[in-house]
Amino acid sequence: MPHPPKRLGAPCLDSETWENEILNATSRDPSSLLPLAPGLYLVATPIGNLDDITLRALRVLHNVDRIACEDTRHTQKLLNHFQIDVPTISCHEHNEDARARELVEMLKGGARIALVSDAGTPAISDPGSRLVAAAIEAGVRVIPIPGANAAVTALVASGLPTAEFAFLGFLPEKAGARRTRLEDLAGEARMTNSEASRTLIFYEAPHRILETLADLESIWGSTLRMVLARELTKVHEEFLRGTVAEIRRELASRDRIRGEFTLLVEPPLKTGQSGSAGATEKLSDRLARMQAENSIDEKEALKRLARELGQSKSELYRELQRQRARRK
Amino acid sequence: MPHPPKRLGAPCLDSETWENEILNATSRDPSSLLPLAPGLYLVATPIGNLDDITLRALRVLHNVDRIACEDTRHTQKLLNHFQIDVPTISCHEHNEDARARELVEMLKGGARIALVSDAGTPAISDPGSRLVAAAIEAGVRVIPIPGANAAVTALVASGLPTAEFAFLGFLPEKAGARRTRLEDLAGEARMTNSEASRTLIFYEAPHRILETLADLESIWGSTLRMVLARELTKVHEEFLRGTVAEIRRELASRDRIRGEFTLLVEPPLKTGQSGSAGATEKLSDRLARMQAENSIDEKEALKRLARELGQSKSELYRELQRQRARRK
Repeated sequence: MPHPPKRLGAPCLDSETWENEILNATSRDPSSLLPLAPGLYLVATPIGNLDDITLRALRVLHNVDRIACEDTRHTQKLLNHFQIDVPTISCHEHNEDARARELVEMLKGGARIALVSDAGTPAISDPGSRLVAAAIEAGVRVIPIPGANAAVTALVASGLPTAEFAFLGFLPEKAGARRTRLEDLAGEARMTNSEASRTLIFYEAPHRILETLADLESIWGSTLRMVLARELTKVHEEFLRGTVAEIRRELASRDRIRGEFTLLVEPPLKTGQSGSAGATEKLSDRLARMQAENSIDEKEALKRLARELGQSKSELYRELQRQRARRK
Repeated sequence: MPHPPKRLGAPCLDSETWENEILNATSRDPSSLLPLAPGLYLVATPIGNLDDITLRALRVLHNVDRIACEDTRHTQKLLNHFQIDVPTISCHEHNEDARARELVEMLKGGARIALVSDAGTPAISDPGSRLVAAAIEAGVRVIPIPGANAAVTALVASGLPTAEFAFLGFLPEKAGARRTRLEDLAGEARMTNSEASRTLIFYEAPHRILETLADLESIWGSTLRMVLARELTKVHEEFLRGTVAEIRRELASRDRIRGEFTLLVEPPLKTGQSGSAGATEKLSDRLARMQAENSIDEKEALKRLARELGQSKSELYRELQRQRARRK
């Protein structure tokens, strides 16, 4: 019995009303106006839409002594937008160790320092974790200020299982290493005893996405369920949902591919029949049949089956051993 | 060469200045004032500190036709705080399927509906994923509004590896099931080929935390590195960092244990020497020695070693098979 949407078509707020809205939205709890305690603040920043920043993040950025940035020029745009005038200092993968020592000295002297990355939650697939470790080591308080994170944002809107997930960052750039990585992950997924499928989350660059989809298809099978998220939180936010084959076809048909991708994969459950996971359920039976039909030995059968399944021989052999061990 | 903190001790903003601050912080981009497009908005809400909400989340909550809540009374407090007057409707684990059908009908009619959980990002370890799936199935647009998430918030400030992580939700409530789950995860971690340690993240209730720490200690060994986060984003936010034995001792010494816990575990790398992972590196050697020293057969040695390592016999046997297969 659907309720009719009552406020549908209500006029949108004009600019002034919206500003008052935000004013009213400001927490009037006096404790929120206390001076910031000394420490290292890990401040999440927007991943596309500049309004994806929290009230606390704005207050912290405004009140710290210094903002350590992955890229000071990039962050300056955000600070300008919010009229925040605080000195910045660079802290990126090429200077993080030296900078961490410097910043930790300041922190030990009672400074309030914010750490931000170019986008999202700092210290995940971003510089910052060494600074965090150094601060903890020095006994400095580390205060996380929650906010946007592309992996979690993509996950909840993907429609894929959310009860468990693994974030795996960027895949290796080189084709061989990337394939090995995906094969290892496929092997892992088959060995997982979880009842729920554990969604895997990667980041991928636009110029490698088609290759990566091809690898996924050959390793997991064309019916692998997955979602590609693109331009998250931006005007052209897009979710491509379907099998890896469908998504690859769709993407390949486009004139050009832009934007960072968040790639979400639903590994088939062990009991599933799709892809190579189902196939490996009866690995020894399948090998025996191949040997009989082609008059070949186990080694040769393994080689052929590995090619067929898009897996490495050694991985398949380990899987076979594991299955045999289980039956005992 | 540490820079002296220049703005240290600057007077904190008074209430009025801070309100102006937020006013200035408001995005003046006209597109942000457009009426909300129809669709299902997944809106992240604070996990403790009410200021951990984004400008966009406030705008969306203010402008939707209805807010679907895990607990309407709980969410009403948040809405009152921010003076948001929009009708709410319950959507929790006991009514989600029926409610999803109802809400999807409204959405198909062009409604703008927000989904929120009691705290954090909806549809992760929370109701909502079935509504999301139903909306996607019906071709309705699903728009994630990023914000707080306890797992990610705890992770970045933990000091544990962040390059990869697995979120695993709540552990089973029953002792046996919980132990099996942790054993499975320990087995998985040993089979992982990643070069980086993949931090595991769980949620745990205060009345079970000591038991769970005891299980972790017996399964992974007392030197397991871990972090417990408590009262995240609140005034008494706390991170306990150390080995599982240290943290268990600390917690056991307290008069009472309160607050939801986020529990982060750093599985030892294969090459590590600590805990059972190091021990299983030479499983067959160890078994052979036990057999020789005690004049027992392999089966009996396996049984004793399993007890010693706090693992199940079958798990140990699988691990042994895997190690033998690898040597070939």
